[in-house]
Amino acid sequence: MSKNEKLVQAITSRDEDFARWYTDICLRAELCSYSSVRGCIILRPYGYAIWELITAELDRRFKETGHQNVMMPLFIPEGLLQKEKDHVEGFAPEVAWVTHGGEEKLQERLCVRPTSETLFCDHYAEIIESWRDLPKLYNQWVSVVRWEKTTRPFLRTREFFWQEGHTAHATAEEAVKETLDMLELYAEFYENALAMPVLRGLKSESEKFAGAVNTYTVEAMMHDGKALQAGTTHYLGDGFAKAFNIVYTDKDNTLRHVHQTSWGISSRSIGGLIMVHGDDDGLVLPPAVAPYQVVIVPIAQHKEGVLEEAKKLSERLKALGLRVLLDDSDRMPGWKFSEHEMKGVPLRLEVGPRDIAEGRCIAVSRDNREKLELPLENVDTTVPELLEALHQRILLRAKKSLEARIVDRNDWESFVETMNTVPGFIRAPWCGEEACEAQVKEETTATSRCLIDGELPEGSHCVVCGKPARHMVYWGKAY
Amino acid sequence: MSKNEKLVQAITSRDEDFARWYTDICLRAELCSYSSVRGCIILRPYGYAIWELITAELDRRFKETGHQNVMMPLFIPEGLLQKEKDHVEGFAPEVAWVTHGGEEKLQERLCVRPTSETLFCDHYAEIIESWRDLPKLYNQWVSVVRWEKTTRPFLRTREFFWQEGHTAHATAEEAVKETLDMLELYAEFYENALAMPVLRGLKSESEKFAGAVNTYTVEAMMHDGKALQAGTTHYLGDGFAKAFNIVYTDKDNTLRHVHQTSWGISSRSIGGLIMVHGDDDGLVLPPAVAPYQVVIVPIAQHKEGVLEEAKKLSERLKALGLRVLLDDSDRMPGWKFSEHEMKGVPLRLEVGPRDIAEGRCIAVSRDNREKLELPLENVDTTVPELLEALHQRILLRAKKSLEARIVDRNDWESFVETMNTVPGFIRAPWCGEEACEAQVKEETTATSRCLIDGELPEGSHCVVCGKPARHMVYWGKAY
Repeated sequence: MSKNEKLVQAITSRDEDFARWYTDICLRAELCSYSSVRGCIILRPYGYAIWELITAELDRRFKETGHQNVMMPLFIPEGLLQKEKDHVEGFAPEVAWVTHGGEEKLQERLCVRPTSETLFCDHYAEIIESWRDLPKLYNQWVSVVRWEKTTRPFLRTREFFWQEGHTAHATAEEAVKETLDMLELYAEFYENALAMPVLRGLKSESEKFAGAVNTYTVEAMMHDGKALQAGTTHYLGDGFAKAFNIVYTDKDNTLRHVHQTSWGISSRSIGGLIMVHGDDDGLVLPPAVAPYQVVIVPIAQHKEGVLEEAKKLSERLKALGLRVLLDDSDRMPGWKFSEHEMKGVPLRLEVGPRDIAEGRCIAVSRDNREKLELPLENVDTTVPELLEALHQRILLRAKKSLEARIVDRNDWESFVETMNTVPGFIRAPWCGEEACEAQVKEETTATSRCLIDGELPEGSHCVVCGKPARHMVYWGKAY
Repeated sequence: MSKNEKLVQAITSRDEDFARWYTDICLRAELCSYSSVRGCIILRPYGYAIWELITAELDRRFKETGHQNVMMPLFIPEGLLQKEKDHVEGFAPEVAWVTHGGEEKLQERLCVRPTSETLFCDHYAEIIESWRDLPKLYNQWVSVVRWEKTTRPFLRTREFFWQEGHTAHATAEEAVKETLDMLELYAEFYENALAMPVLRGLKSESEKFAGAVNTYTVEAMMHDGKALQAGTTHYLGDGFAKAFNIVYTDKDNTLRHVHQTSWGISSRSIGGLIMVHGDDDGLVLPPAVAPYQVVIVPIAQHKEGVLEEAKKLSERLKALGLRVLLDDSDRMPGWKFSEHEMKGVPLRLEVGPRDIAEGRCIAVSRDNREKLELPLENVDTTVPELLEALHQRILLRAKKSLEARIVDRNDWESFVETMNTVPGFIRAPWCGEEACEAQVKEETTATSRCLIDGELPEGSHCVVCGKPARHMVYWGKAY
């Protein structure tokens, strides 16, 4: 079977076997390949192009809000990782250790960074002297390594790609504000770039980042009813600053510790895109991160004037700044349609001899397959409008799907029954005790996804133990 | 001493101690910091911004020539690294080995990639089936690790940043053409983006890449007379294809091996920038890779209208697409001048009350300190012209310096004397025997930098042994 034949072959139906459907899309849309390194994937050109667009969208937002990119080393000496007690306890069990350089055994082991708080702290201790040096608003785009036992493309791999922001501030207020601002930036990015609605909230103590005071999260809902932790921001307080001795001379000449944050979004966002928008024909990409926003398929392209007209159309749309693919390969149009649907290209334009005679092209949107005749003279306005309409449509669909997946449960029996039969978020009160969280996990495999302020009615009781509730929680099974 | 005081303090003079001058600039211009990981540096915001601009310049050229970005894993299993005999011999002595994941000892060691030929080959063997799949023109932007004993910022570090191109072709001709095309692209990039002239040529057998048939190089000349290998392209032949069984079905239905290339430019190009253009006041940046191309320094900025006028000017220049910094910090103009000269900002514009009254600003170019009065009404054309003129001026100066550093020597005695007293390239014939290369290295520490076609006069004799010469060679001491 040739590669082209493989591409047009049907994939597993989403409702039949969601996990296989997901993997089928990853491979068939040529987003990634398995590698010879267990638990690590190869990002193929199409998958990497999506990641490049995601990074560009985020990077622009980071720079507009005053953040600067830097690059820390790939390795962390064991002694440095151990400086903050909670942090090392959280990460040491899952890091990869470098023990030899060439033929020589290292005196101190180095771990491959699982996250870089310790490196940033070490650097901040060196470069921060005075209140004039603050805030430091740094970010880096790198891959990190965590030695996971079970892996799935994009969702959980031993090496993954991400950005990690690390900031240092003069006061706790400023650092808390940064933590919440970045959470808001993440949510806005998900809505406006990936067309993915998210819940925002606080993580419980047992789910928070190792070494943080507070962890905030954006949580998305996948088509199968499972939650995806899509990005987190951490208020680190001054715990790291004390462990690493990061002090500054304040305006009153007093030495004070800085207050820090860190935050990250990873390549698992690509997994989210697939599981929120994809369908039985493959990927559906929001225009902002589609490597090609428009594919032009000439019909009867051997006929005089067809390819010329298709090229003219392509050049016109490129001049608008759109990413356009003119598919003039020697395959049948039907095959091209299938391939570009698999790859989730938002808009297909068909141009054949009759269309040209009538001064139009046929536009087909990837999500709803709506066919429209577009007068060629107007494409400069109609094509961008169709792309924007697609974004709004898939966002609205995802919002409705998220809302439909949130249910309230106030007693333990129906909580367990619902969680084990109807996938989605359950909104239910919690007393705040870890024992109750543990019980939820044991009986349903679900976890507290996030705590949401201001939603707890007076006199609520913990859905597990019945004691007075302290938080309203969104519970769910998660990737 | 505060950070600002350190910034304006003089650095070591270039002619007094070139090595210290270099390190002073790296640290004082805040390009990088030493890290707690021996041999690895931290790229600070200013250094990383230069690297981002270098990557953007190269990435655009790669994409325009049909290359696609991908991402391979960070690790290479030991067995995979060993598949190509010459390759593993070249790299095994200098790789970092991961032996443990979490608590568990790995069954097979993984090395942190020193270069990724083996990973690309493994992937190509899986995805290439037919002549229709060729060529594959892939590239990746990553860091790689080589366990070097002696390190220097940018020039030689255990972790460094680069792009590595890896291509597969149907025929040897196509692969050779790609190897030479990429060499030409590198040379054009160095001239037009970094204002650095380079020599292009072939590496000798002893200097070529481990596993390659041929290695081509671009070599630059530093201010101290030492050569810098600034980028290499390798024609790999079908050796890797045979070791990894990368075959395709040709049009005539025959199975054939692909022919491959690889090529890379690294963050040492930043070291080259410093050592070609820098002076006793710091860095001098070519506009294409300057994080700020223009710095505006208000004079007497507390006076009415000064800051407003400076802001207007800044906005106008930004609207042209220029990268502009308005330095309205509360420091004295003289301190600002020194800092931005240290950081190599190509053009400084000064705006004071008298300038505003006369409808002008003062422009000072970083390289020659020429002061010009620019009428404000024309800055849209004069500022881009001044930047272009600076680029041409520093390129011409570097070209002259390169030419002045090339001398011919035809006898061994004067070759040794010149090499050990007058730094630069010596152009001298060579018989092609490794023993003669080894002798040069032993007596002068110089190496053959590159072999240049068509420059060998009839009847030339090897400068070392006197036997008939086969190549004209540029010899030099190198970083």
